[in-house]
Amino acid sequence: MASLDSWRDGAARAAIEDFVARVTSEGGADFVPPAERIAVFDNDGTLWTEQPMQVEVGFILKRLAEMAEADPELRERQPWKAAHTKDYAWLGGAMTMHYNGDDSRMKVLMGGLIQAFAGWTVDRYVDAAGAYVRGGTHPVLGRPLTSIGFVPMVELLRYLEDHGFTTYIASGGDRDFMRPVTEEMYGIPPERVIGSTNGIEWVDDEDGGQLVYLAQPDFFDDGPVKPVRIWSRIGRRPILAAGNANGDIPMLASAGGPGRPALRLVIRHDDAEREFDTDGGAEGILERAAADGWTVVSVKGDWATVFADLPA
Amino acid sequence: MASLDSWRDGAARAAIEDFVARVTSEGGADFVPPAERIAVFDNDGTLWTEQPMQVEVGFILKRLAEMAEADPELRERQPWKAAHTKDYAWLGGAMTMHYNGDDSRMKVLMGGLIQAFAGWTVDRYVDAAGAYVRGGTHPVLGRPLTSIGFVPMVELLRYLEDHGFTTYIASGGDRDFMRPVTEEMYGIPPERVIGSTNGIEWVDDEDGGQLVYLAQPDFFDDGPVKPVRIWSRIGRRPILAAGNANGDIPMLASAGGPGRPALRLVIRHDDAEREFDTDGGAEGILERAAADGWTVVSVKGDWATVFADLPA
Repeated sequence: MASLDSWRDGAARAAIEDFVARVTSEGGADFVPPAERIAVFDNDGTLWTEQPMQVEVGFILKRLAEMAEADPELRERQPWKAAHTKDYAWLGGAMTMHYNGDDSRMKVLMGGLIQAFAGWTVDRYVDAAGAYVRGGTHPVLGRPLTSIGFVPMVELLRYLEDHGFTTYIASGGDRDFMRPVTEEMYGIPPERVIGSTNGIEWVDDEDGGQLVYLAQPDFFDDGPVKPVRIWSRIGRRPILAAGNANGDIPMLASAGGPGRPALRLVIRHDDAEREFDTDGGAEGILERAAADGWTVVSVKGDWATVFADLPA
Repeated sequence: MASLDSWRDGAARAAIEDFVARVTSEGGADFVPPAERIAVFDNDGTLWTEQPMQVEVGFILKRLAEMAEADPELRERQPWKAAHTKDYAWLGGAMTMHYNGDDSRMKVLMGGLIQAFAGWTVDRYVDAAGAYVRGGTHPVLGRPLTSIGFVPMVELLRYLEDHGFTTYIASGGDRDFMRPVTEEMYGIPPERVIGSTNGIEWVDDEDGGQLVYLAQPDFFDDGPVKPVRIWSRIGRRPILAAGNANGDIPMLASAGGPGRPALRLVIRHDDAEREFDTDGGAEGILERAAADGWTVVSVKGDWATVFADLPA
């Protein structure tokens, strides 16, 4: 039976243990049959660290820089120019301007992103994404990207599964970017990964056919889209949902449903020493958690361990 | 271990047994690890009968008639008028005209369909769909709709699962219409049901929120969309695909992929005595099967039993 050894004694761990005890107690008022014990987890900032920028952003910038390397004309155009010259001020400014209500630079950035993988087969993309994560190092933490997952959250996944839950990732991040590594990092297979994606087209060819990315978005799995994609994929409401950012509010709100118990976990990044200390982009979810009694998990206070020990 | 007792000895049964033996033989050239043994099945005409009209069409017509009953103005407008007066000639004509290149009536029909469940929560829809199938009788076969599943196909699902396969439904039919009955009819839970759907919106309310259908399509899971939705949901290519209609061609073509074995099954409805005898809408897939050596399953020749015995 999986343990929660990396969780310190405290309100968060007690809330988890109490919830699991209630929904698994046959005959109890809050009993939930195993098939309905669905638990959904955001990825960036919930299962792995998302500071100072999401892992996927590094992958996209690498690709944009490669495109600029191959095509001098692109070096004169944003966002390839910024990727080529490693102009992080331009890139970071897109996000800052977006938060201040000016989407002009974000539109330019998104216009580049949508081109980055157009025409690639899904197999090529998955191979490249897997290689990027397996080969990369976190720019601040200095640890392999495959080791930036939160140990207590992986313990929680196993603990829930041992109690009859089925676990899913439901992330705003790109679905096919996560899939090649979720099994080895979290023990979650590709069919249980929900996330954003660009459009994909089936193209007949001599070998039977291929799935190829289009230069258009399909959906961005964030905010109110999250509960819709979760329903689309699972056909059930989750009873446990964990997130860390404002875009996770509807997913957490959707847990349980009328007459059913729910546990909502909000991971708070408040540990400058071991990870990062910032509430940026989480102001709304922390406010909602305080108002509605959602369980806040403090990295600093609730986790005895954050990351796995690295081989010496 | 599940049997294939309802399958007569013959080329189709031999192809299934041979394929399963090859992909499960460790060390063999065609061995496929269990996690990659994905099998996808169309529903209408593959797992249950779709003649003389798909089960879902009856459900939609019932709803349109209810709307017309409640609102006299709708009785003057198509397609509510046809549903209200049971004018099957008008309804059937929409399909005939569509096949002949005239979509004018089909557009009117689709315009009604899209209104039929707009504003319903997914819970209300799933409850109504489940009640319809559990309470209905097939208009020609005279058996409960819950007993129009093909016994040999249900045997095949269990046989594959016993050999480490994971089975999915991938249907052009409405995903949430199938979900409430696939577990009891086929042993396939809602999270393994892929299909068409209208748009769904997350709507906040005092109880946390609800998922509500919009009056707009999201996607129609047929033809080249099928392999895209399968990838979206599973993140792997299937190695076995079964269908019966032209809209299943890309799904069957997508099975396997470069360097991997595949089994493609085409169910042919050629048994007027026990089910129906028609190649309508299947001309293309039968042609492709003949050209590329896909396995054709004759209802008449290959199945010793078609439907389950009913209680006396």
